[in-house]
Amino acid sequence: MSNRLEGKVLVAQGGGPTPVINQSVVGVALEARKFSQVTSIYGALHGVSGIVGENFVDLTRETTHNLERVAGTPSSGLLSTRDKPDEEYCARMFKVMQAHDIRYFFYVGGNDSSDTVRIVNEQAKAANYELRAIHIPKTIDNDLEENDHCPGFGSAARFVAQAFMGVNLDNRALQGVYIGVVMGRHAGFLTASSALAQKYFDDGPHLIYLPERHFIMENFLADVDRVYQKHGLCTIAVSEGIAAPDGTAMITKLLGTEERDSHGNIQLSGTGALGDLLSNEIRKGLGIKRVRSDTFGYLQRSFMGIQSDRDSHEAREVAEKAVQYAMWDNVDGSVAIKRPVLDYSVDYQLVPIDNVAGKTRHMPDNFMNEAGNGVTQDFLSYCRPLLGSNFPEPHRLRAPKVAKILHQ
Amino acid sequence: MSNRLEGKVLVAQGGGPTPVINQSVVGVALEARKFSQVTSIYGALHGVSGIVGENFVDLTRETTHNLERVAGTPSSGLLSTRDKPDEEYCARMFKVMQAHDIRYFFYVGGNDSSDTVRIVNEQAKAANYELRAIHIPKTIDNDLEENDHCPGFGSAARFVAQAFMGVNLDNRALQGVYIGVVMGRHAGFLTASSALAQKYFDDGPHLIYLPERHFIMENFLADVDRVYQKHGLCTIAVSEGIAAPDGTAMITKLLGTEERDSHGNIQLSGTGALGDLLSNEIRKGLGIKRVRSDTFGYLQRSFMGIQSDRDSHEAREVAEKAVQYAMWDNVDGSVAIKRPVLDYSVDYQLVPIDNVAGKTRHMPDNFMNEAGNGVTQDFLSYCRPLLGSNFPEPHRLRAPKVAKILHQ
Repeated sequence: MSNRLEGKVLVAQGGGPTPVINQSVVGVALEARKFSQVTSIYGALHGVSGIVGENFVDLTRETTHNLERVAGTPSSGLLSTRDKPDEEYCARMFKVMQAHDIRYFFYVGGNDSSDTVRIVNEQAKAANYELRAIHIPKTIDNDLEENDHCPGFGSAARFVAQAFMGVNLDNRALQGVYIGVVMGRHAGFLTASSALAQKYFDDGPHLIYLPERHFIMENFLADVDRVYQKHGLCTIAVSEGIAAPDGTAMITKLLGTEERDSHGNIQLSGTGALGDLLSNEIRKGLGIKRVRSDTFGYLQRSFMGIQSDRDSHEAREVAEKAVQYAMWDNVDGSVAIKRPVLDYSVDYQLVPIDNVAGKTRHMPDNFMNEAGNGVTQDFLSYCRPLLGSNFPEPHRLRAPKVAKILHQ
Repeated sequence: MSNRLEGKVLVAQGGGPTPVINQSVVGVALEARKFSQVTSIYGALHGVSGIVGENFVDLTRETTHNLERVAGTPSSGLLSTRDKPDEEYCARMFKVMQAHDIRYFFYVGGNDSSDTVRIVNEQAKAANYELRAIHIPKTIDNDLEENDHCPGFGSAARFVAQAFMGVNLDNRALQGVYIGVVMGRHAGFLTASSALAQKYFDDGPHLIYLPERHFIMENFLADVDRVYQKHGLCTIAVSEGIAAPDGTAMITKLLGTEERDSHGNIQLSGTGALGDLLSNEIRKGLGIKRVRSDTFGYLQRSFMGIQSDRDSHEAREVAEKAVQYAMWDNVDGSVAIKRPVLDYSVDYQLVPIDNVAGKTRHMPDNFMNEAGNGVTQDFLSYCRPLLGSNFPEPHRLRAPKVAKILHQ
């Protein structure tokens, strides 16, 4: 039997956008409408900062039709924030929630956001205020504990794989060394998804470097040299978060300085520096002239028009499940995606928030090769279904060679 | 009546790839099959360098089915080259063509490639060797004279516009200054196409800087400051080729040094340097903290899965027309796309190769605003049809604000 805790629903989005994060907001809004104890459904603008500032919009008065169209639009429709609330910040949020009779709080975000849900939950309990606070997962980094994979990852991975398919074709046409720098501060999943671009035996990326493995410049140069000798070209995927054996980010090591964002994290995205520095090392170390790098940057998390249908469905479902857990089961926690069979189905579970909050999941060992410069078949099998249907495929000419007349 | 010059057809691709350049190769291959005087259809690998080296494949022995699948694949299926032949180089090409009884030569490329066609043509005439050499246009830069627009541009423009749509959504969610650096050494068309991302009145790019206008740092900073004050964010599209009033490329001015490619051109692509340097100027000059840049790089010319259907059709047709001109009319030249009416039809014309060879077309004045930081309605009307059908559209929530309780 459904619980009869009457009051308002509040939904918000935190952290970096994803191509399907709006599916989760819309999932909450539409599912919550089905429960008579819900008096209104509010959306907070700019995540937790909108809660503190009482910047709410009334999603109850939004049309279903427009909600569906926003669901198909990338990036955070309710806008986002990088604020990472402490106890005092959460206390202010909690005060606003009480004033507005918020009884159900759904926060769509990554591990920082799940920590916010944990704190608010504890404060509500301490104040004896009945509140269901549930964390809804999203992150293109795919780094949430307890989840087989996270909503947002499949679409970003699809973008990265399609980008590398094009890079393969481009780097075959005009041969050289190409470095594509991919997002992922601590977890290499997104960079690893570049491997899904491989169709032909000599397709790249030939080398893949992830934050989970030490980056050693001598090995890197030896790898590039070997591939370049063999194929006359080399296509490389590098995570923005690669680090030296001593744990220093390579961007810091190569730059000699570091820039930090508002969280005190070293700035990795929004700059082409790492790719440029690695290119220079290859030019200097191997004497190869045509070395180019691209930093995929923000395109990979908000590009208009590249979404995995599977990812969209799951981003919607985690939100629907979150509402159902809150309404029917009267429990708190974080919704997680499980994969009972490899190829392919999912289950959703509500897991204790402490298992997710503030924690980072990394690529498991069986997804990476021994040499630390590539991925395994296990990873390919894991990742492929997440990219969704109608995945494009490149085609090559197979016309036979013509016998030479002059150069015999 | 068709001319009866019997012999082989040779097709090749030169310069940077485009998302639809294979349509033109396949257009030549399939159209040429219809003419009984054609004894075989060869493709040269890696453009003119494959002609000199006699690296041919026999496209007559390729299946129609696979040709169609390659046509839908981005980048140069016959592979490409940056070689820019001089008289001596062309003489070697011509010798190989004679040896293989090549009587029809179709070269798909930009203004450098058309110059090659011009030289080969002159040598054939001088040697009294019957050869039909026709240039088939392609370039994402859209900078060929005589053409209303070039095959390849529409698809690259679509990528750029979709990228900026995502950037708009992302930069609204987490506000700051965003710079997207777009390809186009001398012509601003591709950068200008970012304006097609605008749907809502406050959508970006708010500022667009093109190579056709002097880039003045003080004006740039004043522009950014004004937009940032108004919207609390600023989204900027910058051409890689922007230059100071004295003609020096901004990348050179800001870097203090320059890197040159194998043509002796300053390296603009394959590095994130320009975006990073402009970001630093904004941080220093305006004290804004969140400033990010992406350099779209090679993704915009070879991305797998973003093609304008209109662009694909036209890339196919220019090649079919090239074959028809050679077979029926027995003439040389360059095929050009004309637009007799604005909204929307095209005609194809064979124009004298001298009108195209080695020349660069720029954005006309009526496509750019007075201030040199944006485009006009004329440009939007010109560009929109080229992006093709099923162009995606972002959607925003329109839910009403909720009255505040605590912050009144």
